[in-house]
Amino acid sequence: MTTPLKEYTHEYFLTAAQCNAQKELSPQMLVQNIIEVATEHANMLGIGFTRLSAERNIWVLSRLTYELKRYPAMHNHYSLTTWVEDFNRHFSNRCFEIRVNGNETIGYVRTLWAAINIDTRKAADLTSLSDITNFINDKLCPIARQSRIKPDGNHTVTTDYTFQVCDIDCNRHVNSGRYVELIVNQNDLDVYDNRMISRFEIAFHHEARFGDKVDVRSEKSDDTMIIEIAKGTEPICMSRLFLSNR
Amino acid sequence: MTTPLKEYTHEYFLTAAQCNAQKELSPQMLVQNIIEVATEHANMLGIGFTRLSAERNIWVLSRLTYELKRYPAMHNHYSLTTWVEDFNRHFSNRCFEIRVNGNETIGYVRTLWAAINIDTRKAADLTSLSDITNFINDKLCPIARQSRIKPDGNHTVTTDYTFQVCDIDCNRHVNSGRYVELIVNQNDLDVYDNRMISRFEIAFHHEARFGDKVDVRSEKSDDTMIIEIAKGTEPICMSRLFLSNR
Repeated sequence: MTTPLKEYTHEYFLTAAQCNAQKELSPQMLVQNIIEVATEHANMLGIGFTRLSAERNIWVLSRLTYELKRYPAMHNHYSLTTWVEDFNRHFSNRCFEIRVNGNETIGYVRTLWAAINIDTRKAADLTSLSDITNFINDKLCPIARQSRIKPDGNHTVTTDYTFQVCDIDCNRHVNSGRYVELIVNQNDLDVYDNRMISRFEIAFHHEARFGDKVDVRSEKSDDTMIIEIAKGTEPICMSRLFLSNR
Repeated sequence: MTTPLKEYTHEYFLTAAQCNAQKELSPQMLVQNIIEVATEHANMLGIGFTRLSAERNIWVLSRLTYELKRYPAMHNHYSLTTWVEDFNRHFSNRCFEIRVNGNETIGYVRTLWAAINIDTRKAADLTSLSDITNFINDKLCPIARQSRIKPDGNHTVTTDYTFQVCDIDCNRHVNSGRYVELIVNQNDLDVYDNRMISRFEIAFHHEARFGDKVDVRSEKSDDTMIIEIAKGTEPICMSRLFLSNR
């Protein structure tokens, strides 16, 4: 019997076509990569889609936080290494280390996953997955946990957006990458030419669907932004960005 | 001395997170994959980014056409095999075969590439790349070439869109995948639940940039749509879709 891998690494190469305007990995592609690598590792450990779907549950990403000292650049080889940090019957914590060009660590990621039942859309009890505790890895993830993101209501910009076909994922909800795009799009291009998102936080509250019209509200201070995506009074997701000079 | 590969295959696995609402590979991700595989093969043959940038030229995708009998589905292994079909001093034709689960061919792609000079934005003369002719492969690509896409002006739907940060690529133009999204978004979700894009054609005319506001105009008939993305009177790209029942 082979030991399940307590740590899993996916190697990437950043092609020119994948780069954003700053010739770097974009925040939305990084988030998509994080979800991909989490899915792959969960499948390898036997705690993925197939196992959960037997009880008609699916994993849902609840919170994600990353910190980077720089983004992978065009033609960089980069990798995401993931491990399970903690688990209880409500949540699983999964962390990631991001490296470029072999072994230089450029950042870390914290994610919090819950499961919901496909039929009831309610939170699922994860007790039956308690063998996940066997895979817990005590590797260090040296970035702060996400604290509650609370807009103060003094947003300076509000834009609206109606979710369309290409925004919808296989669960008929808006895909996480699209929320990240709406958040990143709250700044103009020249902001990102001069500054980078050095810490990115997002918390998912409710699911949006095809045709839902949302407001995107930004509160900006010197180096921090709080962005709320809301459908009327219902929060869909909240984000906090920290911008640092390049 | 090793012989350059006249044919190159990239294998993919379609994760749940990558699927669209129909639990399939989306047209926009397929187009991104096509560009990725073209780039990889060009680099392998020594006719990629590095070679062209020596003369301050870059490859630009001019036309793309694909036909599929079905799309790769969730958890399918699929592959894109590419080869150079033809070359002259203005254009290079590159084709692709798409397979799922080993060897079942589900479709083909035709692409037409030009090169432009980064400084002048004018078409580059490709004569100095004539060694590409050594890599021409006579493998068959059994789908029709793209004919001219000409809207008749009787569009039934017009939406507008302003290009934002996440739409911009490393050349500071709108990325091709975003155009495909705008085109696909011209139908509602239930259209794609019942029908699929069995043939997709796109022709790129002018480059759009950050902040450009465009109109997206659709002309629909029973099983064909012509979609024009235009900035005022200047066409940015034209597309023709053929829809077939699932």
